[in-house]
Amino acid sequence: MKKYSEMTKEELKEEYGVLRKQYKEFQYKALSLDMSRGKPSPEQLDLSMGMMDVLNSQGDLSCEDGIDCRNYGDLEGIPEAKELLGDIMEVNPNNIIIFGNSSLNVMYDFISRSYTHGVMGSKPWCQLPEVKFLCVVPGYDRHFKITEYFGIKMINVPMLETGPDMDMVESLVSADESIKGIWCVPKYSNPTGNSYDDETVRRFARLKPAAPDFRIYWDNAYTVHHLYDHHQDHLIEILAECKRAGNPDLVYKFASTSKITFSGSGIAACAASLNNLEDIKGQLAIQTIGPDKVNQLRHVRFFGDIHGVVEHMRKHADILRPKFETVEDIFERELGGLEIGTWTKPNGGYFISFDSLPGCAKEIVAMAKKAGVKLTPAGAAFPYGKDPQDTNIRIAPSYPSLQEIEMAASLFTLCVKLVSLKKFIEKAEA
Amino acid sequence: MKKYSEMTKEELKEEYGVLRKQYKEFQYKALSLDMSRGKPSPEQLDLSMGMMDVLNSQGDLSCEDGIDCRNYGDLEGIPEAKELLGDIMEVNPNNIIIFGNSSLNVMYDFISRSYTHGVMGSKPWCQLPEVKFLCVVPGYDRHFKITEYFGIKMINVPMLETGPDMDMVESLVSADESIKGIWCVPKYSNPTGNSYDDETVRRFARLKPAAPDFRIYWDNAYTVHHLYDHHQDHLIEILAECKRAGNPDLVYKFASTSKITFSGSGIAACAASLNNLEDIKGQLAIQTIGPDKVNQLRHVRFFGDIHGVVEHMRKHADILRPKFETVEDIFERELGGLEIGTWTKPNGGYFISFDSLPGCAKEIVAMAKKAGVKLTPAGAAFPYGKDPQDTNIRIAPSYPSLQEIEMAASLFTLCVKLVSLKKFIEKAEA
Repeated sequence: MKKYSEMTKEELKEEYGVLRKQYKEFQYKALSLDMSRGKPSPEQLDLSMGMMDVLNSQGDLSCEDGIDCRNYGDLEGIPEAKELLGDIMEVNPNNIIIFGNSSLNVMYDFISRSYTHGVMGSKPWCQLPEVKFLCVVPGYDRHFKITEYFGIKMINVPMLETGPDMDMVESLVSADESIKGIWCVPKYSNPTGNSYDDETVRRFARLKPAAPDFRIYWDNAYTVHHLYDHHQDHLIEILAECKRAGNPDLVYKFASTSKITFSGSGIAACAASLNNLEDIKGQLAIQTIGPDKVNQLRHVRFFGDIHGVVEHMRKHADILRPKFETVEDIFERELGGLEIGTWTKPNGGYFISFDSLPGCAKEIVAMAKKAGVKLTPAGAAFPYGKDPQDTNIRIAPSYPSLQEIEMAASLFTLCVKLVSLKKFIEKAEA
Repeated sequence: MKKYSEMTKEELKEEYGVLRKQYKEFQYKALSLDMSRGKPSPEQLDLSMGMMDVLNSQGDLSCEDGIDCRNYGDLEGIPEAKELLGDIMEVNPNNIIIFGNSSLNVMYDFISRSYTHGVMGSKPWCQLPEVKFLCVVPGYDRHFKITEYFGIKMINVPMLETGPDMDMVESLVSADESIKGIWCVPKYSNPTGNSYDDETVRRFARLKPAAPDFRIYWDNAYTVHHLYDHHQDHLIEILAECKRAGNPDLVYKFASTSKITFSGSGIAACAASLNNLEDIKGQLAIQTIGPDKVNQLRHVRFFGDIHGVVEHMRKHADILRPKFETVEDIFERELGGLEIGTWTKPNGGYFISFDSLPGCAKEIVAMAKKAGVKLTPAGAAFPYGKDPQDTNIRIAPSYPSLQEIEMAASLFTLCVKLVSLKKFIEKAEA
């Protein structure tokens, strides 16, 4: 295919006309597809239906140590669940608290607690003139919504191939006491799909923040969410690394089973140093009498142990992999060599990140929407919804069927071409 | 029995000696009983074991309107659950949000949101020089712990036979803009067990608070928790009453199934005006992607409708009633006519409230503990744990077996007598 940059004005216009017709044809199909959120498909959810059978009225809902899961109590979660989540999160069960069905809720609560009561004895953030957070971009929109909601000023840190720009992170956190945290999705990152390399994690563990209440919010949402058996990203375990570096309290690590079992009915967990956990439990004891232990037991009985989880994640991968590859194949076929967009090819996680030519992303998303394909709003992966270059679009291929993905990806590339062509035509006419 | 007040010094001492021996005998038994918390007994939890069978791997986990309960979303809860909780709470399902497993957590979050973001556009409480709450006393210790945690100044309002002292409530809230709320357990109140009468509820609905962000925290925890079929307390529905009174936004009403199904794994709900709900959902959309809908569905499928709940609560009553009556009988037999204590005889709920002679409660609880019966700490039912008269003790008869209750109640009355006798002897010797 000829690059648009090498076409004459007439060629550009002719190509635009041809593609515009194809776009009209898509519009006649009256599609209604949603690639906006990282939702598991029904087929993926079916994988966990067995979880509905592991507890029944004839069985015993007690833990190994005798705790009756049906009653109140046990703020930190049941021992079996701490062990299972410990294995998933690669940390000691003693460093874990099990929460309810949403790790996002846990992160919100952590920000809220820091805002109202401070961190391990520090001044509550609501009493400070200004609080700032670093945000790796593109990143997870719902992280940014939380900090925005609390009036925390967000500073963009670019995501590189290796992870966040650590030169920038180091110089910012060491100089500015008002910077209290950084949002990270370190493995199969949302939305780029790449993982932080060893050097990056080591530099994180060795940060020297000016603020003693600075914490790394390490949202390891996709820790066991590989797409391939033989191409798996490996991430250095941050808690151990922080301890080694003499910074044991520097990090909160989050995970959940939301994209392992049922998205709405999983269990969430936080791993942190014992000092941090004590601080957290002080608040938790006021907030609740305890988590849903029956659901914890249900998860443990369903998986048995980490091997059960690994086996289960292979089945997810078998469903997800063809969807990712379909998108990547269509992108390559339709856009390869055109130099009007780049995209990531992750080994795991839930997203492909697409970058258009500058100033095109919003229009591409709008065009796709008009033809019945809903994408994450352009800019969503940036604080305040503002992508400075207007290039980034998050593609979430998990929910639609393979056939729908084909359709949606084809339409998407068509929109990318049309919007890019318009830019070239405008330039040629200017 | 001769009243202690009519005994001579010698008679008092003789009686003390006799009872002291009985107390020693109790100590030899090495009891280990817990009457400190309102925990359902294992027999009560067994009533809901059928809930573990209503969902299974062959069934459909979709709502009537097609929502897949396994996936993300639906912030307000599923329609069926809103209908069921609506019936339990006697409000329109449109006025309900379904939350997670703990209504205490919901209340904490409400206080926290008001503290960080205000109430329907008001100034956040963290920016005010002082925030105060009214606390009906004796009341629920965990309510008071929340307001204490947020540094909210608590003012005691005495609980009368009819409910809180409304003269005091009215004059305080109309005069002081820093009073932002009142904690209420209006039905089968924790710990007194009595319910607010019609006049009290009507006066609540007609409050004219100086603070526009004043809210009644109406924790209707025991709404369907009757002990008797024919002696049931009836409470005027507060949301409707507030609307009638032209104060639709004045109240947040809370309930949960914690003491209906499994204490740790129920579902909680809040009912409020549409204005309040909009305010709440603004925050909730930042905090979480949605509640555990599978557990909501499980509850709906288990009960069918409100009739299923009513039937189910009769079975709870059949287990609880003999325990309450045993305590009341032993109290009457051992303490009746002695004029050294009074106690409540509730028609529902989870507690009996005992009032000793002034200055005796702490010592009674300590003595019971030394003989192996754990009671709620004296003073717990008051803000800051401070019972100004040191008279109130909360009795929670739900968890121990009937036989254990007999033992515990006997020991308790013995401790009441011993501590009271000591007071009389001291007085006689003074």
